[in-house]
Amino acid sequence: MRLTGAGAALAAALACALAVATTAAQAATDPLPSWNDGAAKQSIVSFVERVTKPGGLDFVPVPERIATFDNDGTLWAEQPFYFQLAFALDRVKALAPQHPEWKDEEPFRSLLRGDLKSALAGGEPAILQIVMATHAGMTTEQFETIVSDWTATAKHPKSARLYTEMVYQPMLEVLTYLRANGFKTFIVSGGGVEFMRPWAEKVYGIPPEQVIGSSIKTKFELRDGKPVLARLPEVNFIDDKAGKPVGIQMYIGRRPLMAFGNSDGDLQMLQWTTAGAGPRFALLVHHTDAEREWAYDRASSIGRLDTALDEARVKGWTVVSMKDDWRRVFPFAGE
Amino acid sequence: MRLTGAGAALAAALACALAVATTAAQAATDPLPSWNDGAAKQSIVSFVERVTKPGGLDFVPVPERIATFDNDGTLWAEQPFYFQLAFALDRVKALAPQHPEWKDEEPFRSLLRGDLKSALAGGEPAILQIVMATHAGMTTEQFETIVSDWTATAKHPKSARLYTEMVYQPMLEVLTYLRANGFKTFIVSGGGVEFMRPWAEKVYGIPPEQVIGSSIKTKFELRDGKPVLARLPEVNFIDDKAGKPVGIQMYIGRRPLMAFGNSDGDLQMLQWTTAGAGPRFALLVHHTDAEREWAYDRASSIGRLDTALDEARVKGWTVVSMKDDWRRVFPFAGE
Repeated sequence: MRLTGAGAALAAALACALAVATTAAQAATDPLPSWNDGAAKQSIVSFVERVTKPGGLDFVPVPERIATFDNDGTLWAEQPFYFQLAFALDRVKALAPQHPEWKDEEPFRSLLRGDLKSALAGGEPAILQIVMATHAGMTTEQFETIVSDWTATAKHPKSARLYTEMVYQPMLEVLTYLRANGFKTFIVSGGGVEFMRPWAEKVYGIPPEQVIGSSIKTKFELRDGKPVLARLPEVNFIDDKAGKPVGIQMYIGRRPLMAFGNSDGDLQMLQWTTAGAGPRFALLVHHTDAEREWAYDRASSIGRLDTALDEARVKGWTVVSMKDDWRRVFPFAGE
Repeated sequence: MRLTGAGAALAAALACALAVATTAAQAATDPLPSWNDGAAKQSIVSFVERVTKPGGLDFVPVPERIATFDNDGTLWAEQPFYFQLAFALDRVKALAPQHPEWKDEEPFRSLLRGDLKSALAGGEPAILQIVMATHAGMTTEQFETIVSDWTATAKHPKSARLYTEMVYQPMLEVLTYLRANGFKTFIVSGGGVEFMRPWAEKVYGIPPEQVIGSSIKTKFELRDGKPVLARLPEVNFIDDKAGKPVGIQMYIGRRPLMAFGNSDGDLQMLQWTTAGAGPRFALLVHHTDAEREWAYDRASSIGRLDTALDEARVKGWTVVSMKDDWRRVFPFAGE
């Protein structure tokens, strides 16, 4: 035990020396360089300083420093349509040779002809059919490989960048800044949990166990003596709107101190967060930048921001104007 | 920013100095003092040294060091019956004045007369009725208070100790030892997740977001403008047997490196864990100590250990004989 213990102590000392050096270096620099100086940026920094100041009136112990982030439209883009839908459409094309019947069956028929509008005319049932045809019927391990392969190659139709490059540099900085201040950062998204986990750690620094999302049911089976989890074509949980506080309680079991969203789908998460005792923080990303990203809010079918925007004004939540508050939007774009 | 940053750096340096000192101190001492020297203890220590040795063939990076623990019979006792059932029975008594109809209604009628056997004669439906009558119908915050009040006062019928004192000292040491070696420790229990969370952090050092268990559904509601999560009398998820790998994937999204259980209810968790690539570790606590705890296995209705015991022998999983391998069982008992 002695050698191992000494080794562990040495490793710990080195890791700590590094951590301290990093913290010291950060001290001299702006932790949010892609944010313009203004009320939005100031509200984040002030809140973090307030709850982390040792001995301060509003000090919050590290285990209670929970921050939750919506994904689509908050951490990465969601236009011209949700990236997970792009994934599903690509999967329909890839699987079509094994499904000759899709040529005559909606919504697949229209999809395969490139007519997205007709395909989605069937509304939610049509989308559910597409999701189940592309997200179920394999093991969890197989699905992880499919997602990893897709995110490594598929390109966004407008930017021609990988989808995982379409993340917001200012929000990456917030994630890093919060973790440096003892926060545990979680994703709480309406998107599929197994669609996000394969890349969330690399892209956001958020490990799989801190990703909360919608899910389908899985079933434990022994196949030739080998245990697998089969993905079933049955909805398990929808982590959107009133489902977000439910998901937060189910997975985290503790009320967030800070919550970040961008649409009416995040309203209940922000309500739940700010209704907690003591200091709480809520932020909405308002997509106001038609030039560098997209401009949309009350009338958009994707990421509609209407009721939540009104409530944010009333309650004094931080509303980020992407156009005015962000010096840079994507990591690949210059300042 | 400068002052805050410098303050943070100082705090980090102090925390690190402390961590290093602690690690160094541990190096000189046995991390598992309540374990007798023998194969079981050795198997734990060898495995941890093997996967944490930098540059070693079987080295596992910190983020992948996931360890899952069953609760009832693995971390705390489960005799003469599951502690959560004791909680439910106490709740039936407390709620009886508000339910005059229970005097004529099974299983409540028998329960209130102290006839547990007749009450449970109805099998699973009777138990479900008791659970729903005592675990649903309030908000998540109210339920947390009820559980906290109960665990602070209710006493075990045999030891007359608080239920939260009926935890296994050797397993507490394993939890601490694993965390000191970079592991994240999770509970994966058939018990109710909201029944365990209020005390798991204090008793086991396991935060709410690392507690996985069975659950009922909750619903987000605004009551007089205040958001609450109402607990509904409807099963959401049963985290037992084949449900354990499902729960692990749903909550953690990563296969454990080590898994600890004590009954057939843990078999699938151990199968799922050990079927992963690279080194994996599985352990069963065998209740063999009628004097200091209880002795039961294949014939017990609580914590039955039968199929899993056979499979452990075949697959070479570690089987702990409580009587022979543990120097001490409970923290309150001398060596």
